[in-house]
Amino acid sequence: MIAVTILGNNSALPAHGRHPTAQIVQTRNHTFLVDCGEGTQLQMSEYRIKRSRIDHIFISHLHGDHYFGLIGLLTSFGLNNREHDLHVYSPEGLEPIMLMQLPASHTLLPYRIYFHTLKEEGLLFEDDHLSISCFKVNHKIECYGFLFEEKAHHRKLNAEAVKHFNVPYEFYERLQEGKDFVTPEGKVIPNVTLTLDPKPGRKYAYCADTIYYEPICKHIEGADLIYHEATYMKDEEERARARYHSTTIDAAHIARKANVGKLLIGHFSSRYENLAPLENEARQVFANCEAAIEGTCYIV
Amino acid sequence: MIAVTILGNNSALPAHGRHPTAQIVQTRNHTFLVDCGEGTQLQMSEYRIKRSRIDHIFISHLHGDHYFGLIGLLTSFGLNNREHDLHVYSPEGLEPIMLMQLPASHTLLPYRIYFHTLKEEGLLFEDDHLSISCFKVNHKIECYGFLFEEKAHHRKLNAEAVKHFNVPYEFYERLQEGKDFVTPEGKVIPNVTLTLDPKPGRKYAYCADTIYYEPICKHIEGADLIYHEATYMKDEEERARARYHSTTIDAAHIARKANVGKLLIGHFSSRYENLAPLENEARQVFANCEAAIEGTCYIV
Repeated sequence: MIAVTILGNNSALPAHGRHPTAQIVQTRNHTFLVDCGEGTQLQMSEYRIKRSRIDHIFISHLHGDHYFGLIGLLTSFGLNNREHDLHVYSPEGLEPIMLMQLPASHTLLPYRIYFHTLKEEGLLFEDDHLSISCFKVNHKIECYGFLFEEKAHHRKLNAEAVKHFNVPYEFYERLQEGKDFVTPEGKVIPNVTLTLDPKPGRKYAYCADTIYYEPICKHIEGADLIYHEATYMKDEEERARARYHSTTIDAAHIARKANVGKLLIGHFSSRYENLAPLENEARQVFANCEAAIEGTCYIV
Repeated sequence: MIAVTILGNNSALPAHGRHPTAQIVQTRNHTFLVDCGEGTQLQMSEYRIKRSRIDHIFISHLHGDHYFGLIGLLTSFGLNNREHDLHVYSPEGLEPIMLMQLPASHTLLPYRIYFHTLKEEGLLFEDDHLSISCFKVNHKIECYGFLFEEKAHHRKLNAEAVKHFNVPYEFYERLQEGKDFVTPEGKVIPNVTLTLDPKPGRKYAYCADTIYYEPICKHIEGADLIYHEATYMKDEEERARARYHSTTIDAAHIARKANVGKLLIGHFSSRYENLAPLENEARQVFANCEAAIEGTCYIV
C-alpha cells in the first residue's frame, strides 16, 4: 500500500488558503517527503504528520515554491534534537543554499544531511519492499519526477492444494518464497501447483512541474496513481506552454497514454478559486481524475 | 494612529496552528513588515494584507523563525511584477542569503531591493508623520527592536476662541501650524490663545527576541503599546535565561519600568497550547497585558 497526503496543491503565488507544493508518500516502512514549499512544516503540524520519521526528501527542482520550506524543516529537525541521518535528493544547487543559512544563526545541526545530486534518470533508493527512481520531465529549469514502486508481494498459498498435498504449516513460508514441496515419499510438488501469483506491487508517480511531455509515459506506464500538474485550464494553453506548465487536458492525456489507474491533478494557478471546473475538464479525457485536496490522503 | 496586525505569535517550532514571528505595522501612509517567519506571505493572504503596499521590511535578527519567509515574499513580489523599490533592514548577513537563492531558479527580480545593514542604534526611516528607529536588545545573536513614533499632530483649534476673534476659515490651517493671527485692526492674537496642544503622536515598540534587558526601557519609555516576547512562563525561568528569552514576568516588568500604556506578549513556546495562563501571569505584574493573537489588529 502507498498513501499520498497532499500538503500543498497550489502553484507559486499563495491564494485561497492553498499552499505551495509538498506531499507525503507513506509506504510500509517509510515516510517520504516530496517537494517542500514554504509552510510545509506548518502543514505537517496541521495534518499530524510525524516529521521525525522522514529520512528521505525528494526535491523535484529549484523553483522556490518547491523548496523554500526546506530550511525551516531542517532547522526544526535540529531544534527537536534529531540525531539520525537525513537524505536529500535534488538537482544541483540546493546544498550550498541550505548550508549557507546555518552560520547566520550560529546553528550546528545535531544530525547529518547527505545531499544527493540528481543528474540523470535512475534508481535513488531501494530496500526489500520498495524502489524509488527519478525521471526527467520538461520544465523551465532542470526538473525530475519520482516513481515509487512496491516490490511484488510473496506468492499466495493455494489453500485447497496445500490441504490436498498435506503440506505442513512450517513449510508455508518457503512456499510463499517460491520453493517446491517434497512429500515424505519423495515426490516433488511444484510450487505453481501449491501457490497463486502474488498481488503486484503498487506504483505511484509524482510528475512534478512539466509542460506536456510524452517521454514520461514509459516511466509511469501502468501506475496505479499519478500526480500530474494541471496549473491551467485548456483556455490558458498558450500561457501554460510559455511557462512550461500543463493544462488539465495535458495531464489527462498523459494519464490516458500511460494507461494509469487514477490521475490526481494539482499545482493550481491562483486564478482558480474553485477547482471543480478543472477536475471536470480533465475528466472529459480521463474519467478517473480528482483534484488533489490539501490534507487528503489518497490510498493506492 | 498605528495599527499592529499579528501574523505569527509562536516561537521557532510550529505548533497549535500558530506561526513564527511576523507582524504588520500600519500608519497613516505606510504598511511596514516586521520580521518575516516562514509562511508570512500565506498569512498575509489569509488576513487580506495588501503585500504590494509594503516598501520597508525590518528583520530583527537572523534566527530562521524571523526571516525564512522572506525569500518567498521577495520572489512573489517579482511574480506579481512589482516595480517599485523595496528596503530591507537587518543585521549583517541577510543580503547574500537572499541573493544566492535567485540564480538557482534563474530568477531576475523586476524591482530593486536596498539592503540596509543594522550596526548600531538610531534612526532608520523618517517622513513628515513618522520616524522609525532601532535599538539593541540582548539575544543569542545580534538582535534589534524597532520603535515607531508618530510625530505630534497639528495644534487643535480652540473653537470658542476662534469664533470670539472672528478668525476667517482660510486661516485655520495656519493656526494649526502654530501661526499667530493678526486682526484687520492690526492686533496680534497669539496662537496659544486660539489653539489647544496637539494630541501627542503614538508610539509603538517591537522588542524582538531578548532576555530580560532593562537598557531597552529608555528607548520604549512611555510607549502606548509594546510587543515584548514571553516565550516561557515563570517556572521555566532558567530555560528562558539559557536561551536568551524572556518569561511573562520579565515582559511585564519591562512594561512597568518603561511606563508603557499596554503590553502585548508573544513568541510563545510550542509547549503552551492555551495562552490564558501566560496572559494571567503577566497581568499580576502589569495589568494592561494581552497575549498577541494571530489575525488580530491592535490599534494604538
